[in-house]
Amino acid sequence: MKHNLTALLLLVSGALTMSTSAASPVAIVIHAGAGGKGIKMPADKEKQYHETLTKALRAGHAVLIKKGSALEAVQAAIVVMEDSILFNAGKGAVFTSAGENELDASIMDGKTLLAGAVGGVTVIKNPIHAAHAVMKKTPHVMLAGEGADTFAKKVGLEIVPRKYFYTEHRWKQLEQWKAKQKTKEQSQLEMTREYLGTVGCAALDSKGNIAAGTSTGGLTGKQYGRIGDSPIIAAGTYADNASCAISCTGHGEFFIRHAVAFDVSARMKYANETIEQAAKAVVQQTLKKAGGRGGVIGLDTKGNIVMEFNTPAMNRGYIDKNGKLHTAIYK
Amino acid sequence: MKHNLTALLLLVSGALTMSTSAASPVAIVIHAGAGGKGIKMPADKEKQYHETLTKALRAGHAVLIKKGSALEAVQAAIVVMEDSILFNAGKGAVFTSAGENELDASIMDGKTLLAGAVGGVTVIKNPIHAAHAVMKKTPHVMLAGEGADTFAKKVGLEIVPRKYFYTEHRWKQLEQWKAKQKTKEQSQLEMTREYLGTVGCAALDSKGNIAAGTSTGGLTGKQYGRIGDSPIIAAGTYADNASCAISCTGHGEFFIRHAVAFDVSARMKYANETIEQAAKAVVQQTLKKAGGRGGVIGLDTKGNIVMEFNTPAMNRGYIDKNGKLHTAIYK
Repeated sequence: MKHNLTALLLLVSGALTMSTSAASPVAIVIHAGAGGKGIKMPADKEKQYHETLTKALRAGHAVLIKKGSALEAVQAAIVVMEDSILFNAGKGAVFTSAGENELDASIMDGKTLLAGAVGGVTVIKNPIHAAHAVMKKTPHVMLAGEGADTFAKKVGLEIVPRKYFYTEHRWKQLEQWKAKQKTKEQSQLEMTREYLGTVGCAALDSKGNIAAGTSTGGLTGKQYGRIGDSPIIAAGTYADNASCAISCTGHGEFFIRHAVAFDVSARMKYANETIEQAAKAVVQQTLKKAGGRGGVIGLDTKGNIVMEFNTPAMNRGYIDKNGKLHTAIYK
Repeated sequence: MKHNLTALLLLVSGALTMSTSAASPVAIVIHAGAGGKGIKMPADKEKQYHETLTKALRAGHAVLIKKGSALEAVQAAIVVMEDSILFNAGKGAVFTSAGENELDASIMDGKTLLAGAVGGVTVIKNPIHAAHAVMKKTPHVMLAGEGADTFAKKVGLEIVPRKYFYTEHRWKQLEQWKAKQKTKEQSQLEMTREYLGTVGCAALDSKGNIAAGTSTGGLTGKQYGRIGDSPIIAAGTYADNASCAISCTGHGEFFIRHAVAFDVSARMKYANETIEQAAKAVVQQTLKKAGGRGGVIGLDTKGNIVMEFNTPAMNRGYIDKNGKLHTAIYK
């Protein structure tokens, strides 16, 4: 009897080991904006940032350990950051020059290369869910403006009044920006260089699939329905199981011109670079030379994680394949 | 006296040769949509296509031989195609599911990597000029919807009433499309597979700079502010003196997911492929495998021209560095 029990236990343990080794390790990495002027924020504020980054990571990781998909994990982490007033996405979005909030988001599935994006949406509580709905429920990749809002209502996403996105500190940022712009011509209008607080996430799930997503309120003082890199597949977001899953943050125009997210993937595929080499080359060489400030986060199907930026700070964090949690703000 | 004249003529001829050899050869290549079902059109219709393609090529080439920039040549060629009812751009744009016209365009400068784009514009006669104005007169790359229309008015571009874009044959296409969709769910809505009539151009100027641009009315029956690949830098348009200038046409969603224009450039830069090898790999392998129908045109700074497509037809043509003009429709 004892003998049989031992044999049974060995059998069960063997099956468990097999099932564990068959499953991919899981990992998740996030950013919540790059920028800064090298001046540190007060300790209590800093604590809030670390706490919210940790909460976002844990939300995404919980999906992954329950064998949820990378696509679901990316959304779970991003929703936490969209719902926080700390970051420039969802609830904490910055104001346009017209004193309104226009949100952009995108998501991509590394397994199928399917992708979805929304640009300039105004009443969707969580734009990352709208991006995912575009991917799942339309033949399109990108919907913009009123059409995207209408679509989100139709598929039953949570709708909020526009004033939901009002926060006092973002309104003050707009007023400061306006005061600075008064004497300038339209062609010379400078965007705020203080902080580029987009949020994003890349995740690796137990099936070995990767995904990436990005969500933003854009730049303070943006005009005329400006669309940045965040809703642009290849610029702000890219995911391909054959290379990597990448989300970007920074001065979006540079990320569009240099197709930053796709460029990291292309260097891995065509120049046989590792994800670390590719991310470093794009952020520290290509982007820096062009004057493009910002950073990228990402991972590959082996769970190798990158968090590369050329600004004094990037809100960031990961839970790696060994379950180690790490969050950071400054260099 | 006769002696002196001969000497003078030799001098002049020498100077001309020098000036010719110092300047880059010029070249231009265009497309006006890919698709077709393998059925040829009537001879008189075909003649109109060849004539308009030739007119567009000559308009762009005239700029180049007067030492105008590649950026100007691209616009000159595209304006001819936008003003024609034959192609799905400008005047000949298709209708959205709501029975309206929403136009997209983008342009990129291979020398500076500056780029401009407009998405979902409704009252701008020549969207390619609006894309160029975004590049020259704003700090942004992409403006969408009402904001882009407002911007175009402000900078003095030619504005037309929305009914300017009405053409009988495009309206009939919408009605045919609607009749087919009646029994289908939103998630299964199929876009017309008949013709993907975007227009685009790439040019090489006498200073050795290249540029590319693309303009479209999108897909018949598109919904909800859908944005295709044409206004997306890296997807529908890319230009970099270090590699190539590319404009795409086809089922836009596939061109976004695979960052087609940038991918041709990336293969040249990182895998040392020629423009011919890179364009062929992307169109005939990557895109085809994914089910993406369409094609690309482009050139490099040496004046090597590509016109690669995986559909039965692509309206296309070039004037090469030797001044040879060629237009074609079918394979």
